[in-house]
Amino acid sequence: MNAAGLAALLRADLHGVGEVPAGRPRHPAEAEAGDVAVAMDRDLLPLLADGAARVAVVHRDAVEAVPTGAVDAILAVGRPRLAMARLTGAFAARPAVAPGVHPSAVIEDGAMLGDGVAVGPFVHVGAGAAIGDRSVLCSHVSVGAGARIGADGLIHAGARIGAGCTLGAHVIVHHNASIGADGFSFVTPEKGSVDSAKETGRVEATNASLVRIHSLGAVTLGDHVEVGGCACIDRGTLGDTVVGDHTKIDDLVLIGHNVRVGSHCMLCGQVGIAGSAVVGDRVVLAGQVGVADHVTIGDDAVVAAGGGVGTSLKGRAVYAGTPAVEREQAFETIMMLRRLKGLFREVRTLKGAVRALQGGDPGSA
Amino acid sequence: MNAAGLAALLRADLHGVGEVPAGRPRHPAEAEAGDVAVAMDRDLLPLLADGAARVAVVHRDAVEAVPTGAVDAILAVGRPRLAMARLTGAFAARPAVAPGVHPSAVIEDGAMLGDGVAVGPFVHVGAGAAIGDRSVLCSHVSVGAGARIGADGLIHAGARIGAGCTLGAHVIVHHNASIGADGFSFVTPEKGSVDSAKETGRVEATNASLVRIHSLGAVTLGDHVEVGGCACIDRGTLGDTVVGDHTKIDDLVLIGHNVRVGSHCMLCGQVGIAGSAVVGDRVVLAGQVGVADHVTIGDDAVVAAGGGVGTSLKGRAVYAGTPAVEREQAFETIMMLRRLKGLFREVRTLKGAVRALQGGDPGSA
Amino acid sequence: MNAAGLAALLRADLHGVGEVPAGRPRHPAEAEAGDVAVAMDRDLLPLLADGAARVAVVHRDAVEAVPTGAVDAILAVGRPRLAMARLTGAFAARPAVAPGVHPSAVIEDGAMLGDGVAVGPFVHVGAGAAIGDRSVLCSHVSVGAGARIGADGLIHAGARIGAGCTLGAHVIVHHNASIGADGFSFVTPEKGSVDSAKETGRVEATNASLVRIHSLGAVTLGDHVEVGGCACIDRGTLGDTVVGDHTKIDDLVLIGHNVRVGSHCMLCGQVGIAGSAVVGDRVVLAGQVGVADHVTIGDDAVVAAGGGVGTSLKGRAVYAGTPAVEREQAFETIMMLRRLKGLFREVRTLKGAVRALQGGDPGSA
Repeated sequence: MNAAGLAALLRADLHGVGEVPAGRPRHPAEAEAGDVAVAMDRDLLPLLADGAARVAVVHRDAVEAVPTGAVDAILAVGRPRLAMARLTGAFAARPAVAPGVHPSAVIEDGAMLGDGVAVGPFVHVGAGAAIGDRSVLCSHVSVGAGARIGADGLIHAGARIGAGCTLGAHVIVHHNASIGADGFSFVTPEKGSVDSAKETGRVEATNASLVRIHSLGAVTLGDHVEVGGCACIDRGTLGDTVVGDHTKIDDLVLIGHNVRVGSHCMLCGQVGIAGSAVVGDRVVLAGQVGVADHVTIGDDAVVAAGGGVGTSLKGRAVYAGTPAVEREQAFETIMMLRRLKGLFREVRTLKGAVRALQGGDPGSA
Repeated sequence: MNAAGLAALLRADLHGVGEVPAGRPRHPAEAEAGDVAVAMDRDLLPLLADGAARVAVVHRDAVEAVPTGAVDAILAVGRPRLAMARLTGAFAARPAVAPGVHPSAVIEDGAMLGDGVAVGPFVHVGAGAAIGDRSVLCSHVSVGAGARIGADGLIHAGARIGAGCTLGAHVIVHHNASIGADGFSFVTPEKGSVDSAKETGRVEATNASLVRIHSLGAVTLGDHVEVGGCACIDRGTLGDTVVGDHTKIDDLVLIGHNVRVGSHCMLCGQVGIAGSAVVGDRVVLAGQVGVADHVTIGDDAVVAAGGGVGTSLKGRAVYAGTPAVEREQAFETIMMLRRLKGLFREVRTLKGAVRALQGGDPGSA
Repeated sequence: MNAAGLAALLRADLHGVGEVPAGRPRHPAEAEAGDVAVAMDRDLLPLLADGAARVAVVHRDAVEAVPTGAVDAILAVGRPRLAMARLTGAFAARPAVAPGVHPSAVIEDGAMLGDGVAVGPFVHVGAGAAIGDRSVLCSHVSVGAGARIGADGLIHAGARIGAGCTLGAHVIVHHNASIGADGFSFVTPEKGSVDSAKETGRVEATNASLVRIHSLGAVTLGDHVEVGGCACIDRGTLGDTVVGDHTKIDDLVLIGHNVRVGSHCMLCGQVGIAGSAVVGDRVVLAGQVGVADHVTIGDDAVVAAGGGVGTSLKGRAVYAGTPAVEREQAFETIMMLRRLKGLFREVRTLKGAVRALQGGDPGSA
């Protein structure tokens, strides 16, 4: 790749020499000869003068600010993070899993592997499972009986795809994620402490025994879904837990049984969604957000980090806090709490003033 | 199975024809011929008319509301979630692990496998470990040296049972859970920042070095314990970390070193319990609850989702918030926060009124 | 080991007979003959009289309180947790992995194993990876192509070390941890809901598509780093995500892409650090703390459990709450909330009094 080729790929304006080699993108201070220095943040531009890179990617508005002679080619881009997506995409490598089936892998009878599938060491594919064309199963992956993985999938080491689960095309599952563990669902034969807490706010009954509700359903993930490391998506009770196309799920996220998540959602790190909740399309849940069971979140809602969603939320709004309310209201509460000390003081002063007006001694307030 | 057989199993009243085949339970809209439609929620009853199922499970109070002729047999039940437990239990399948030991598994010398044990591919059982009768170890499980798993256990793919850990009978461990990693326990040779923060609320010392406290203990789980996907239960320091019989632990829960959890507890998704805490019997910790180290939670306590337990809590009460307080108090605080804006306004008005009474200019308040 | 030898190792004062055998340390109530009873907590001293142990470790100030004749040797120590570190260190056992490479392991061409390395069953070491002298890889570990593990490492069962990642010497990684999954980084080609929420607090744009920013970087862990079970440390975008020497990371912690964590930090259970955050040296983040992307936390800062760090924090201070503020301020707010009900009551009383002073009817307030 040279600067001109990379410019075309990034849809960037090229200033300078198009024939310069353009290798791996790096921070300007870390770039070596042949690398591309990425300096879309204006603060990084001075580093170009001392760096070894001969090609730089900068923001369109900052071309003039590149030190003279610092590089041989400047690639000028608009939306920096989009340029970063294209740039990293150009240099991303797939995991080194050799095509075909590693001799140590165990493929049960009746499993079907598509064309160009790569299966790494110590992979187990259960009976009747189907792996789509060109999909890659890295080491130590397990695919349960009857599970289906679409074309162009990438299942990283140690990920678990439970029996009967369905993954669309272009799905990525990271290290040690769990798809298709049983839902967490128990019932007390008589009314228990949770029933009583919900009804009266008090504990008036005890959980003498816990009877298991089994998970007969599975998990269905749409196309282009990505699941983070050690994330857990549990089976449904009767039908499937469902995640829509293009939804991205970060590390250590929990999606409970029967949950339905729409398409193009972003569920950030350590988010937890309890059983039977319904999340719309293009919803963003920031890090550590919790969602209660059975609530509904509307399309395009955004919940700020750490928020606790206890009741259903309308779409196309930003929420924050626990219990989560509209962001403006949450911020207003935070600001009022900062002024609360003053309010206590004012009330104390007022009490004194009123007492004085009443003819009493203001000092005894 | 036919409708009459299923009615007996569910302890349901049968209305209609007992000989109709009764297959896999499903949502009424998804049920196919031969399936049982599950419509215990009254809103679902109209779907029965258009559905393919000939058998329906409905609430005892809703029998009359089933559309005429919609199905051939109605199974009428009382407590719906209990019926769901029995219904799903009747159709639940065990993982497809063949009896005996898969040829790829590695069983170290001195390990003992009970009668009817099933060991899947790539399982490692350490020296001196003992697996109880009829237990199933799915693929990629590891059982450390000297660990003991009781009868009728089910250890899902990738779960780790550390050396010397003890699991009772009928224990279920889900995908990639960790039982018996070392506790997170360090000490600074001199007083460090945490000691100083606890004593004075300020940082007056620095953590120049961190010395490891090793975990010589293991983990003991009682009978009928269930551990969720990617959950972590750490070893004790001198003795074992202990979880009592029938306690259910959801995905991504963390139970720290030396913790003692009682019996029949429910620890929901992403709960974290820090080292040496003591949790009583039948305690329910909802999703994302955090419990500080060394605190005690009494029997039958319920902590609502997201609560932060910083101090010991008495049993048989409902708690919420951070720091967790009795639910009524937490709700009262939330309601007062919603009225806080009005309070600021009232105080401003009062100030003006008082100034006017004092003979001043109310407008300058 | 006898009492005298153990006293030397603990730097303890020996009272009594030095030749008594001193075996595994235990709780006084659980200690058997030959064990050492650990009774550094004064409440445990009475148990020594009935216990089987002949050697006890007690606090220096409590030697006189040991029941007469209860044991043959008393080891008196100063800082109890430091003594616990030395005591447990003396008896800690390494996992039972035989030296050499287990026949089931797969070592790819060009991988280099140092002297005395132990590789367990079902381990996969990728091409060009390097394992330092005396390191132990337990069962089911995967080490990606080109990854480097320093000397004296201990990688527990099921841990994933991604391609190109670098671990220093004396690193411990626990069960099923993920080092080197891809960062969670996506961009919308046009401005999306998150951009709009950050700029205006409202959702004025929709996430029509999500384009992936790939992770070209890896993860670098310093010497003596410890990573807990199911913890996830993601790759950087261009360079590496970095964790400094001697930093300890608990179970289920998430460290996002491009994060830089300093040395000697303690990141407790379920902490989450979002992308590109910078954490200084000797920082302590207690359980379930969340840190927003791109913020900076200064050296020696301590954040109390459950805190939500939304903005950069100065070092050498204690923080609490969400959003995290200095601990004193957080506590003051909590105390004011407890008094808020009284404030509402006082304002109501004041309104009545003012109305009366104005000549109105106080009862109608």
